[in-house]
Amino acid sequence: MRSLCSSLPTAEPGSVVTLEGWVHRRRELARVTFLIVRDRTGLAQVVLPAGTEVPPQETTIRVVGTATANPQAPGGVELTETTIEALTEAAATPPAELWRPALDVSLPTLLDHAPVLWRHPAQRAKGELAVASLRGFRETLDGLDFTEIVTPKFVESATESGANVFAVDYFGRPAYLAQSPQFYKQQLVGVFERVHEVGPVFRPEPHDTVRHLAEYRSLDVELGFIRDHRDVLAVLREVLAGMVASVHSRAAAAVERTGAVVPVVPDEIPVIHFADALALVGAPADEPDLAPEHERELGAWALAEHGSDFLAVEGYPMHKRPFYTHPQPSDPQWSNSFDLLFRGLELVTGGQRLHRHSDYDAAIRARGEDPADYSAYLQAFKHGMPPHGGFAIGFERWVARLVEATNVREVTLFPRDLPRLTP
Amino acid sequence: MRSLCSSLPTAEPGSVVTLEGWVHRRRELARVTFLIVRDRTGLAQVVLPAGTEVPPQETTIRVVGTATANPQAPGGVELTETTIEALTEAAATPPAELWRPALDVSLPTLLDHAPVLWRHPAQRAKGELAVASLRGFRETLDGLDFTEIVTPKFVESATESGANVFAVDYFGRPAYLAQSPQFYKQQLVGVFERVHEVGPVFRPEPHDTVRHLAEYRSLDVELGFIRDHRDVLAVLREVLAGMVASVHSRAAAAVERTGAVVPVVPDEIPVIHFADALALVGAPADEPDLAPEHERELGAWALAEHGSDFLAVEGYPMHKRPFYTHPQPSDPQWSNSFDLLFRGLELVTGGQRLHRHSDYDAAIRARGEDPADYSAYLQAFKHGMPPHGGFAIGFERWVARLVEATNVREVTLFPRDLPRLTP
Repeated sequence: MRSLCSSLPTAEPGSVVTLEGWVHRRRELARVTFLIVRDRTGLAQVVLPAGTEVPPQETTIRVVGTATANPQAPGGVELTETTIEALTEAAATPPAELWRPALDVSLPTLLDHAPVLWRHPAQRAKGELAVASLRGFRETLDGLDFTEIVTPKFVESATESGANVFAVDYFGRPAYLAQSPQFYKQQLVGVFERVHEVGPVFRPEPHDTVRHLAEYRSLDVELGFIRDHRDVLAVLREVLAGMVASVHSRAAAAVERTGAVVPVVPDEIPVIHFADALALVGAPADEPDLAPEHERELGAWALAEHGSDFLAVEGYPMHKRPFYTHPQPSDPQWSNSFDLLFRGLELVTGGQRLHRHSDYDAAIRARGEDPADYSAYLQAFKHGMPPHGGFAIGFERWVARLVEATNVREVTLFPRDLPRLTP
Repeated sequence: MRSLCSSLPTAEPGSVVTLEGWVHRRRELARVTFLIVRDRTGLAQVVLPAGTEVPPQETTIRVVGTATANPQAPGGVELTETTIEALTEAAATPPAELWRPALDVSLPTLLDHAPVLWRHPAQRAKGELAVASLRGFRETLDGLDFTEIVTPKFVESATESGANVFAVDYFGRPAYLAQSPQFYKQQLVGVFERVHEVGPVFRPEPHDTVRHLAEYRSLDVELGFIRDHRDVLAVLREVLAGMVASVHSRAAAAVERTGAVVPVVPDEIPVIHFADALALVGAPADEPDLAPEHERELGAWALAEHGSDFLAVEGYPMHKRPFYTHPQPSDPQWSNSFDLLFRGLELVTGGQRLHRHSDYDAAIRARGEDPADYSAYLQAFKHGMPPHGGFAIGFERWVARLVEATNVREVTLFPRDLPRLTP
């Protein structure tokens, strides 16, 4: 019966214990050999007579031995009088020494050898932060009566942002990979009212930047019967708070190991209007968007002024937002949409959408397009839709900001971008 | 402040209540008009003077009225003295009458009008069963210390089953859509030991069958440090029991509404060897696989003999299983793999995988291929992997069997197959 490394400190002294795991480290001293075994729960120390043949690092082994108190051992208990059995042939030398406290490798080395280098406890801890965040996301939305949905990744036409999509040979005819579940999550507000989805989205980003990937995870939310985008922002606030709470409760060790600076989510996220944001950073009043340096400046301002790592910028100009965006009723050059900046970086885009069929009709015609080309999407609106809105969180960006990684690839196991399609 | 339909029965009589939802039904009698409002939580009855103009079915509305006891009303309370405000223009007539107890439409009609017809409470209930199952799946695996993983859907080569993949134009060079996360979940056993993923898989199924889709959801599990495939089957048993428990606790109303026959998961799932299964159904001993009618016969046998809706068939011939399959040690013509039949239909495929690098090398060469072509995958094995195995549940098949649908498309919101790419 296998025991886990984490349970060794509570083993009865003198009892026989079986561990299974990887050879994390060997230390051969003159009079004794120490072996550190690693499993998913942690590390355990095994003591062997000097000169014992021990399989090389990363070989998987089964160790049977006697639990023995030793104040010097991690957790105060080690295994003595052990027998070791290798579960495979000797492992090849890993591309980096996984037992060292820090994984000091270049980004290309990390990515080329991800399946091995992510075994390093500090690297794996980034994955643990990600998983805890995801559980907090779902838990919060389950609690708010949202329904998890599954939307198709094959779509017939590339409507949302023109030609910027991946094309697939779909049984001999063209199809595209969904850039976002936007159209589907809206339609499903008509069925379930409140929906969320965690899934891959596909975007052929032609530029090599530290924050874009060709395939990433989008945490999507959409809800009906709202007054405006501020109701959407209130749900986003709850979701972020739930993600943070889950990181604290489920991944405290990973926070420590990665040195992650977990944000405090304020009771109310500060909001600034796009026009005021431009003025604040000294940009011309007719700028159509915020540049990355403007976002950084606004992030610093939010921290100084409101003590907040988060800042919502609302009211982006209508002509820069997608056609389904709801205008700001008081001044329709602006929109009822927002971006959420987290430490000065865009993390979330959201807002209120149009909900009247006639408004879609007009918005699509205004783009010089034919509403008939959108008939599958517009069907839900023809048959009654509530005022609604939603948001999408870029998952890799969230994790990257949490551990203050400069490149999303540092926290993405198998990133996909222009040059990289493997491992 | 909006109230939900489900809370109306507990509203203080005489209090003013605001409901928001869809016009589910209008009934115009000589002396009074009844309006049924639908929201995500249920239905509520609104009473209006005869001749009141009421928006057509499916229009979204806000109703303000007085909670009034009426034993005839659903839940014993209705809204009287109401004012109604439409939230959009009048909705078009829906493709079927959504207020009737059963949704009596052909499959093509259901699929063409999915975003509207899934609003029918009996149809939506199928979605609720699906969601409850999914939550049970994740909850069980979280409890067993599995880590949720995210694996790439773009892959460089089409290795697992030859040419049967979708090709993508990936920045001008070919890439493929992952048919399964198999290779990645195995590699990540090296990192997290126990992993699971819920995600889309893509298979260009050229045949129009009732149980195949070009895109479906695979519930994938993989775990390390097993003895053999029976350890994998034991985890599968826990997962199924967790899914069933979640359906009962979270979707009892949906079970009732759909007439779903929720299975009992036996403490131990009965197992029959492939060779014995062939003999039992009277098939020749050299048959390489079970035909669908054999599976049905075996399902009936499991129910009669073991009182079980589930039957695991183990030991499938090695030459019919993928190259990474672990042979049966006592007789290597057979494999340490299994299919799980649920009511006579294949629902899950699983088993033990090879874990030694040298075994992969030999298995790939035996197929006449070059192990170098698999180097990204084999990297994890070169650096030490535990004995491991796993399984994949076809999510749409599970839901279809639960409600005894003959076609997976009846329970799939936006199915994708050879002819269908929309809505």
